Amino acid sequence: MQAETFALSDWMAPHLQQIECALENWIDADAPAGLGQAMRYAVLDGGKRLRPLLVLAAAQAVGLQDESSGVAALRAACAIELIHAYSLVHDDMPCMDNDVLRRGKPTVHVQFGQAQALLAGDGLQALAFELLTPQDSSVPLSVQAALVGLLSRAAGYKGMAGGQAIDLASVGLALTEAQLRQMHRLKTGALLLCSVQMGVVVAGQVQTAAMLALSRFGEVLGLAFQVVDDILDVTSDSATLGKTAGKDVAADKPTYVALMGLAQAQAFARELRAQAFAALDESGLSAEQTLPLRALADMVIQRDN
Amino acid sequence: MQAETFALSDWMAPHLQQIECALENWIDADAPAGLGQAMRYAVLDGGKRLRPLLVLAAAQAVGLQDESSGVAALRAACAIELIHAYSLVHDDMPCMDNDVLRRGKPTVHVQFGQAQALLAGDGLQALAFELLTPQDSSVPLSVQAALVGLLSRAAGYKGMAGGQAIDLASVGLALTEAQLRQMHRLKTGALLLCSVQMGVVVAGQVQTAAMLALSRFGEVLGLAFQVVDDILDVTSDSATLGKTAGKDVAADKPTYVALMGLAQAQAFARELRAQAFAALDESGLSAEQTLPLRALADMVIQRDN
Repeated sequence: MQAETFALSDWMAPHLQQIECALENWIDADAPAGLGQAMRYAVLDGGKRLRPLLVLAAAQAVGLQDESSGVAALRAACAIELIHAYSLVHDDMPCMDNDVLRRGKPTVHVQFGQAQALLAGDGLQALAFELLTPQDSSVPLSVQAALVGLLSRAAGYKGMAGGQAIDLASVGLALTEAQLRQMHRLKTGALLLCSVQMGVVVAGQVQTAAMLALSRFGEVLGLAFQVVDDILDVTSDSATLGKTAGKDVAADKPTYVALMGLAQAQAFARELRAQAFAALDESGLSAEQTLPLRALADMVIQRDN
Repeated sequence: MQAETFALSDWMAPHLQQIECALENWIDADAPAGLGQAMRYAVLDGGKRLRPLLVLAAAQAVGLQDESSGVAALRAACAIELIHAYSLVHDDMPCMDNDVLRRGKPTVHVQFGQAQALLAGDGLQALAFELLTPQDSSVPLSVQAALVGLLSRAAGYKGMAGGQAIDLASVGLALTEAQLRQMHRLKTGALLLCSVQMGVVVAGQVQTAAMLALSRFGEVLGLAFQVVDDILDVTSDSATLGKTAGKDVAADKPTYVALMGLAQAQAFARELRAQAFAALDESGLSAEQTLPLRALADMVIQRDN
């Protein structure tokens, strides 16, 4: 694959199909009393699958060793998507963001009621860790433990849940750039970083220069993702976003646009793109190996929803 | 230790101290924006610690091999208590049971608001899996993976979360005994069974007669726990229970007392005690080894709160 001929859509299509098929298989429709339907509704038929694609792209960049690492990559990819999906379900609930539209559909609590939405989120979090610990020896136990170690920390109070707590507490406050960056480093950055790190771990490379460089890539990408999110909240509309536009402004939430203005936020996003690419340049991996990661970064930064 | 001289309180005191101290250390007060306070409030200073004590008693019954298995036992004990605690936080929320009193204190959402309660529950679930995957090689990776495998399944849609969904769906319905048993097998039974199984796993015994017998003990104990819970809901008062008495009746929830009457439910609890003890008799373990498990079973069945 040459840089000039690489088409992300060609790379993505089979991987997306693999991810959708695995999610479809692994979220049991027969879970009791409608819980399976609510869990499936929260995850299937929507979402860009950015985190799973990052897991697979990072694993390929570092080099999948054998069939077992391919299985582990797919499980890690789906597990992190379940964590992301559960966080959206809980985040949309009336006591949090009280949002009624997500991925162009009614949110889970609108469709199934708040109690079922709460349980579906809880069940999805548990299922993520279940996916990482298959009981058929398809994934080495050491890899299982390392993946759970990464994902539990990225999802918990040192990561996503902690970032959401800061977000809640900062409505109506004027944050400094450092405070805003810390909030997003936890709230959205931790899972994006974790996606890349899980990919490296399933490929069997833990203490390497590639791990450090890809971690730096993941961190910068996480920040860029949030800056672009803040930009889209003011420049896009609900139909394009598939969720309510302008809600950060309406809720008086601190954003990069509020902090630095629209033009400066857009320049910052471009600068972060350059930093992400520089991290890959320093990874010791070939340009060819990192093409999907670069293209995914461009997708994040140039997206319109 | 002889059966006639065994005092559960003597066995429990040092173990409870160990559990409380570990929970105190492992739930970080510095978690961002008040999240740490809410998580600590949900777990510390209350609770009978039945599940952690079962983990430790099962591990001792089978035989702890070395220092590493002692560390693993304590981590497993605390992890399952975090799952239990998070389920109570979410269960008490207005969209679920809407309860304001728990362990004699205002519930988490009353004290910290619904959004923080939701996040605290989410953060506690993630922390449970973090505790099971220490990154300092104190617990073998194979044991870490096995413990996560057990706990994620017991907490998720095949266990606790699934049972809660059935519970939600069955308010106002007349369940058969088989349906009621299935609901409780998942809702409360799965975690109690998991406690015993985790204890066996940390002691390094997986595919053994002891595992089968102790699993049978855990299943019967889980059922007995619920039957006694239903009995106490009608025979006790809120001050003794530390939570609102009579709420099952008020909410028109199916219970063993509603199904079979009070006297019959009490006889059923006695029968289950005999079954639990019979399972231990068949475990191949000595009477001395299983004394703490027997005493904990008696505590469950003869408790008044």
